[in-house]
Amino acid sequence: MSTILRINTREKTHSFEEAGGDLASLGGRALTSKLLLNEVPPTCHPLGKGNKLIVAPGLLSGTAAANSGRLSVGAKSPLTGGIKESNSGGLVSQKLAKLGIKAVVLEDKPEDAGLSLIVIKNDSVEILPADEYVGLGNNEVIKRLWEKYGKRVGVMSIGPAGEQRLTAACINFADPNGRPGRAAGRGGLGAVMGSKGVKAIVVDDSGSGKVSVADPEAFKTANKRWVEMLRGHPVTGQGLPTYGTAVLINIINEAGALPTKNFRSGRFEYAQDISGERIAELIEKRGGKAKEGCHPGCVIQCSNVYNDKDGKYLTSGFEYESIWALGANTTIKDLDDVAILDHLCDDIGLDTIETGVTLGVAMEAGLIAWGDAKAAIDLVKKVATGEPMGKIIGNGAAFTGQALGVDRIPVVKRQALPAYDPRSVKGVGVTYCTSPMGADHTAGYAVAPNILKVGGDVDPLKKEGNVEISKNLQIATAAIDSAGLCLFVAFAVLDAEDGVQTIVDLLNAQYGLSLTPDDVVSLGISVLKDEYEFNARAGFTKIHDRLPDFFKEPFPPHNTTWDLTDEELQQAKDFA
Amino acid sequence: MSTILRINTREKTHSFEEAGGDLASLGGRALTSKLLLNEVPPTCHPLGKGNKLIVAPGLLSGTAAANSGRLSVGAKSPLTGGIKESNSGGLVSQKLAKLGIKAVVLEDKPEDAGLSLIVIKNDSVEILPADEYVGLGNNEVIKRLWEKYGKRVGVMSIGPAGEQRLTAACINFADPNGRPGRAAGRGGLGAVMGSKGVKAIVVDDSGSGKVSVADPEAFKTANKRWVEMLRGHPVTGQGLPTYGTAVLINIINEAGALPTKNFRSGRFEYAQDISGERIAELIEKRGGKAKEGCHPGCVIQCSNVYNDKDGKYLTSGFEYESIWALGANTTIKDLDDVAILDHLCDDIGLDTIETGVTLGVAMEAGLIAWGDAKAAIDLVKKVATGEPMGKIIGNGAAFTGQALGVDRIPVVKRQALPAYDPRSVKGVGVTYCTSPMGADHTAGYAVAPNILKVGGDVDPLKKEGNVEISKNLQIATAAIDSAGLCLFVAFAVLDAEDGVQTIVDLLNAQYGLSLTPDDVVSLGISVLKDEYEFNARAGFTKIHDRLPDFFKEPFPPHNTTWDLTDEELQQAKDFA
Repeated sequence: MSTILRINTREKTHSFEEAGGDLASLGGRALTSKLLLNEVPPTCHPLGKGNKLIVAPGLLSGTAAANSGRLSVGAKSPLTGGIKESNSGGLVSQKLAKLGIKAVVLEDKPEDAGLSLIVIKNDSVEILPADEYVGLGNNEVIKRLWEKYGKRVGVMSIGPAGEQRLTAACINFADPNGRPGRAAGRGGLGAVMGSKGVKAIVVDDSGSGKVSVADPEAFKTANKRWVEMLRGHPVTGQGLPTYGTAVLINIINEAGALPTKNFRSGRFEYAQDISGERIAELIEKRGGKAKEGCHPGCVIQCSNVYNDKDGKYLTSGFEYESIWALGANTTIKDLDDVAILDHLCDDIGLDTIETGVTLGVAMEAGLIAWGDAKAAIDLVKKVATGEPMGKIIGNGAAFTGQALGVDRIPVVKRQALPAYDPRSVKGVGVTYCTSPMGADHTAGYAVAPNILKVGGDVDPLKKEGNVEISKNLQIATAAIDSAGLCLFVAFAVLDAEDGVQTIVDLLNAQYGLSLTPDDVVSLGISVLKDEYEFNARAGFTKIHDRLPDFFKEPFPPHNTTWDLTDEELQQAKDFA
Repeated sequence: MSTILRINTREKTHSFEEAGGDLASLGGRALTSKLLLNEVPPTCHPLGKGNKLIVAPGLLSGTAAANSGRLSVGAKSPLTGGIKESNSGGLVSQKLAKLGIKAVVLEDKPEDAGLSLIVIKNDSVEILPADEYVGLGNNEVIKRLWEKYGKRVGVMSIGPAGEQRLTAACINFADPNGRPGRAAGRGGLGAVMGSKGVKAIVVDDSGSGKVSVADPEAFKTANKRWVEMLRGHPVTGQGLPTYGTAVLINIINEAGALPTKNFRSGRFEYAQDISGERIAELIEKRGGKAKEGCHPGCVIQCSNVYNDKDGKYLTSGFEYESIWALGANTTIKDLDDVAILDHLCDDIGLDTIETGVTLGVAMEAGLIAWGDAKAAIDLVKKVATGEPMGKIIGNGAAFTGQALGVDRIPVVKRQALPAYDPRSVKGVGVTYCTSPMGADHTAGYAVAPNILKVGGDVDPLKKEGNVEISKNLQIATAAIDSAGLCLFVAFAVLDAEDGVQTIVDLLNAQYGLSLTPDDVVSLGISVLKDEYEFNARAGFTKIHDRLPDFFKEPFPPHNTTWDLTDEELQQAKDFA
C-alpha cells in the first residue's frame, strides 16, 4: 500500500504516484492531515479549486486486525473553515488498502455543474458521467451501484445535501448490507465532494491481492490478543454489542449530562423511551438486527437495523449521537420519529449531529415548536427538495441561527456540539474547545474517564484534571484514527496494561518495524501539530477555542457552569 | 455635551451618566470604538445581551460648522464579527448634540419579542411599546413618527430586515425631508438594533439650548474659511453638487475599475445609462431634486431626489455605491430598476452595497439570471415578507454564497466589497483588507489619490505607494469620523494647505483647546488602535486581512491582479 491516486475533477483524468518520503509511513488521519498541510492553501475557499478531498485507509486497514476498517476523509472544512478529518466505517477502507492505494485525492474543480461517478478497480480507474444518479438519495444510489457493480463493492456517495454543497452535508458509506447508515459525518465534507462534482466513488477490489504483512505469525499472535482484549472488556464485549451505542442514553441522562432542549438541561424526561434498552426491546419485538459491524472484521458489533412497527426496515446505524441530537435535544420523544429523521439524514446525506442541533436552533427561534416531530421531518425533507428553508437547515446550526436571528447556538468553530453537555462532562468540553476539528466528541472522548470510569476516574463536574485527560485522549485518538481502528477500541485499550502495546505489535508485524508505545504517542502529537498549524495559517487563534457565552449559565441538575479559562484550555494543546 | 444616556432594553429603564475621564474628549467614532473596547466582550454573540449599540454625534456636531452633522453608530458587527462604526447623515446627530448627549448606549436585551420606540426629548426619555410600527418599512415609520412627534424630529429606525435581525440590515435615518435615504449602512447594525428590540429612536431637541462654543469669534472665522474651502474645491464645490456621488460611475468606469458582473471586469457596457450625468438629465426632465444635503448645514449637497418617468417620487439619496452595487455589479442597466431596488433597500432597511453584491452572488449561483431586474426586485421583496429566501438574501453576500454553494464571493471579513475593484484601485484594496471594519471604501478612500488625483497621485494599478496612502487615509478618516464631519470634506482638506489646520481651528474654538494637526493624527491612530485591539480579542489575525483568492485572476481591461503580500498589507497597520 504505497500509492496515491490523484484525480483531477476538472480534466477528468487520474494519475498514480508513489507515496515516498515522509508520507510512506503515514495512513488514515495522519496522511490526510499531512497532505492537506502540504498541498492545500489554508486560506482557500473550501468549495474552490484549491481545496482537496482526501480519502485514506488507516495503517492497519485491509489486514485481519479486528476493527481496523475505518477510513479517514480529509479536506478544509466548509463548516469550520479549518482542517477536517472525519472517519467512517463501511467497505471502502479495506478495499482501497487491498488495491494498494494509500490515498485517493480529488483535486481542482469542474467548470460545469455535471456530476461524475468514479469507479476504482484493480486494473482501472474510470471517471464516468453520473447523470442517472443526480438528485438521488444515498439509499437508492447504493442500491443501483450494487446492482451495477456487484454486491459488496465499496461505495461512498453524497445525497442531495452534498450535491447542493451545503455545509452540514456528510459523505455516506455503504455498510456491509448496502445501507448508507455509515458516514464521514462532520464538517461538511459532503459539500466538498459536491464541489468536486463527484456523486459517488465505487471501489471494487476483485482480483487484488492481500495486504502484505511482514511477519504473519507475529501478526496473528497480536491479533489474537487484540480480539481477546476487545471481547473481554465490559463496554466493547457486552454494553455496545447488546444495546448499541444508544446504551449511553440512560447512562448520560443519569449522569445529568444529556443535553436537552438545546442544551438547557442534562435530563430528558423521556430518555427511557429513546434508550438503547428500548431499541433492543423493539428489535426483539419487531425484527431488525441488534448486533452488526460497520465493516467486516468488527468484533464489537455496535451497529443495528431498526424496523418500524410493521416490521419494515426503517433505519440502520441508529446511534447514540443521532438519537440524542434528533431526540432529546429537540425534545422529540417518539423513537420511531427519531428513526425517520435518522433515515432522512442518511438518505439526504446530512450529518445527524449537526442536523439535530440545527433543529434545536430552529425550535429556539420559534420556526417550529419544541418536540414537533412532524414539523421537524418536514423541515429536513426541504433539504432534499432544495427549497430555500432547506438550504438554511442544510447549512447547519450556526448558519440557521444567523438566518433566524437567534444567539443561543451551541457550536465551537461553527460546528455543532455533540451529545454531552460540556458543563457536566468537562473533559469532553475541553475537547470541544481545543480540537482542531471544532466541537467533536470523538476527537478526545473524555466521557470514558469522566462518566464511564474507563481509563481513569476524573470528576466530570469540576475542571481539575480534565485538561490533562482531554489532551491525552486527543493524542491517542489521532493515532487510532491514523491506524484505521474504530475509536471504540479505546475502551479496551485504556483498561488493559498491554493495550497500546498490542496495537504497536500489530503495526510492527505488518510493516516490519520496531515501534514502541512512545512512537504511537509521537505520531498522535505530530498529527495534532499538523492540524494546529493548518488552522493557525487559516486564521484560527485561541479565541476560537471557546464555548459560546451561554455555557456560563448554570446547567441543571448539577447547576454546573463552564469555568475553564482560555489559558487553562490552551494547556491541552501544549506539547512543548 | 458631556452626558451618556444608557438605556437598558430588558428593563426598559434609562440613566444618565457623566462622560468623564478619557471619554470627555472623545466623540463620534472615537467614542463608539472606545466604549465598545471598554464595555463589550469581544467574543460575545453580536445579537446577545453582551453587545451594545452605541450612537454618538461627532465632536463638531450641533455647531454651525459646515458638514458636521454626521453620526457614528457602533457595535460588535453581526456581519463581520468585529468592531463596527458605521456613520450616517440625517437629523439625529445635531439634535443629540444640542441635547447635551454625547452618546446613547442601548444595553442588554429584551426577554420577549416585542419592539420599543425610544423618544428622547429635552426633558424626558420614554421607552414605549412600538406595536403599531411592527413590520413597517422605514418610509412609513418615519412618516408616522413625523406626524406624531412633529416634522423634522430626528428619527433612526429599522425596517423588516433589522426586525428579523438579518446581518445585511442597516439603520435608516430620516433626511431633512423625512425620507429614509440615509443609513448607517454597513455591518448589520440594524440587526443589533433589532436584537435590542428597538424599532425606532425619535430625537426632539425642542427647548434645548445651543451647543456651547468656547470662542465664538474664532469659531466663526474658522468656519468661514471652512465653507470657502469646501465650496472652492472642484469635487466638493462642483462635481458632487452637480451630479451627486454618481458622478463617479463614468469616472471609475473610464478608469477600468467599475466592478461589473460580480467583479469580472472593470468596464460596464451600460455605464453611461446609470451615470450621474444621466441622473441629472432625468431629474431635469422628470422633476426631483439634483442637490440636497443629508443634514442641515451641508454645503456640498451631493444627495438628490429621483422620480420615475411619471414624475412621481421613486427614491432619494440615490448614490454611486448603491447604483453600482445594484446596477453594474448585477448588470442591471435600467436606472429606474436600480432606483426601485434602492428604494426597496431603504424601505426594508438593507445595506445597498451588501444587497447589490448579494444579488451578484445569487446570479453567480444561477438563482436568477444576470441583469434580470424583475427577478432581483422580487428577491429583495422576499426580505420584507420574511420568507426563507429573504432570510438568505438579507444576511448578505457571504451568507448567500454559502447557502447557494458558490465560492466567488467578494468579501473581506464577510463584508461585501464596495464599488472599486481592488486590482485596479490598489490603494482602496489595501483599505478593504486592513480596515478593522471589513471591506469598506469609506475607511480610507484611496480612490482620491489613485483615480481623482486629489491629495496625491499614486498609480492605482501598481502596488507601490498604495500601502502608505491607505494607511494615512485610514488615520485621517478615523479622525474625521470622530469629528462628525462628512467624509467628502477630505477632498478639499487634502488639497488645501490649511485643510487640517482649519478643522483643528474649529475644534479648538469649540472646546477651548490648543490642539495641533499632529493631535488629530494621534486621535486617528488611537481610534484605529482601539479597533485593532477589539478585533484581536475577537480572534482576528492578519489572515483575515485578505481578499478572496479569485482576486488573483487578471481583471480586464488592465488585466491587473491583486499582488500585495500579507506582510506588505500589515504595514498599513503598523504605527510603531
